[in-house]
Amino acid sequence: MIIVGELINASRKKIKEAIEGKKDPQYIKDIAVAQDKAGATYVDVNAGVFVGEEPEYLVWLVENVQSVVDKPLALDSPDPKAIEAAMKVHKGTPMLNSISMESDRWEKLSPVVANTDIKVVALCMSDAGMPTTASDRMKIAHDLVNGLTKINIPLDNIFIDPCVQPVGTDMTFGIEFLRAVAQTKAEFPGVHIMCGLSNISFGLPERKFLNRIFMGQAIYCGLDGAIIDPLDAGMMGTIAGAVALCGQDKGCRGYLKAFRAGLVKA
Amino acid sequence: MIIVGELINASRKKIKEAIEGKKDPQYIKDIAVAQDKAGATYVDVNAGVFVGEEPEYLVWLVENVQSVVDKPLALDSPDPKAIEAAMKVHKGTPMLNSISMESDRWEKLSPVVANTDIKVVALCMSDAGMPTTASDRMKIAHDLVNGLTKINIPLDNIFIDPCVQPVGTDMTFGIEFLRAVAQTKAEFPGVHIMCGLSNISFGLPERKFLNRIFMGQAIYCGLDGAIIDPLDAGMMGTIAGAVALCGQDKGCRGYLKAFRAGLVKA
Repeated sequence: MIIVGELINASRKKIKEAIEGKKDPQYIKDIAVAQDKAGATYVDVNAGVFVGEEPEYLVWLVENVQSVVDKPLALDSPDPKAIEAAMKVHKGTPMLNSISMESDRWEKLSPVVANTDIKVVALCMSDAGMPTTASDRMKIAHDLVNGLTKINIPLDNIFIDPCVQPVGTDMTFGIEFLRAVAQTKAEFPGVHIMCGLSNISFGLPERKFLNRIFMGQAIYCGLDGAIIDPLDAGMMGTIAGAVALCGQDKGCRGYLKAFRAGLVKA
Repeated sequence: MIIVGELINASRKKIKEAIEGKKDPQYIKDIAVAQDKAGATYVDVNAGVFVGEEPEYLVWLVENVQSVVDKPLALDSPDPKAIEAAMKVHKGTPMLNSISMESDRWEKLSPVVANTDIKVVALCMSDAGMPTTASDRMKIAHDLVNGLTKINIPLDNIFIDPCVQPVGTDMTFGIEFLRAVAQTKAEFPGVHIMCGLSNISFGLPERKFLNRIFMGQAIYCGLDGAIIDPLDAGMMGTIAGAVALCGQDKGCRGYLKAFRAGLVKA
């Protein structure tokens, strides 16, 4: 599984305070190192709340995080200026989080990533808004894969995000998402499928409990990436368990490693 | 979900002691009531360790359990004499746990259930032994469904059990089982799919942790019955969560009920 550590996001109060005025680089670095050690494949950086200053702050985040972590980052912004600036200072191959089929976002971001080797998270969203059924998601997924391959993004660099919606709002929202994952896997075996899935449990009690079950189901369907908090031991253990149960863990070595690391507790 | 409460099984030491010499009917009754209250749809009764006395003890279990629980029982034996005797005293429509395509078992049990309205758990096992791949399971599932419908068991009374094998033994055993569940659901939409799934985690640490993830995945695939310990709160909560995530729980009422009952804890 490809894990994108989600914690360095300016929509979180403490992160915002650490970024504002470039006040507390150490706090950012500590969170980056913690996510790295916990097994993040990419460390997400987001400075989206700072309108007008986003490029500057995103660059500052990239530089600080990469000063302590030897991993690629997920550059989390819809602003092409912020992405371009961050790509310039980023060492190695970053991930863009994220493009979509919304006209405005597509038109602004596709030129920035065209003909590069950047990894691209591609949300199943269009001008028609958030899709609710699997088939609505698949229409957008087709457009995304076609659009991205046309600008020379190889399939292996595409991470389709079918967009989770809360099951508390509509009882079909969980199953339709899972079906979209399975169909994406079947129709585009070369692309990755990734999401931030905590939205599934919005408005319901014991959200982590529900999120973990859903992660297990999504991994069965073909999810191979997740934007999560890698410090959530129960979730990381669940991923290790689900991967083992789905035939992707020889000798259950990953599960046993997670157990020894204290991530697996019934 | 159809829950078969598995606790009254003579292979468990305390149960055996309570059954032997018909010594402690109250202990049996207490376990029956506890499983009933915890949400069992059927209460399993098994006296298999008492060779020669199994019919007598199985009848005794049926009478004692049904004296305190107003639910049908799962008569758990491969012995046609024990099943016949238990069926005679059972009030309502019981479940047979279980028939299979092993010649000896099929030949002895199929005449007992033919032309009755009994529910039949049908194991995907044949004289070739335990199947390991999804396609091996499907061949046996076809034989079971054909054989049972020929002796007038309606599809709705058939509970196919694809037989879980430990993922610690072979990394493909989890995914092949899950695929068999999904294929059974697709090919025989009228039958039920049930299993006792704890075998998946045999030989691995924190078995309950793994069992719960697997239950969530199996429910996504189409499992609609489980032979489990209904007093395992985490498992019962997991089932409620998985059912909600799979679009089978309007307004998440079942999940919220499980939460209020204390079954849902991250």
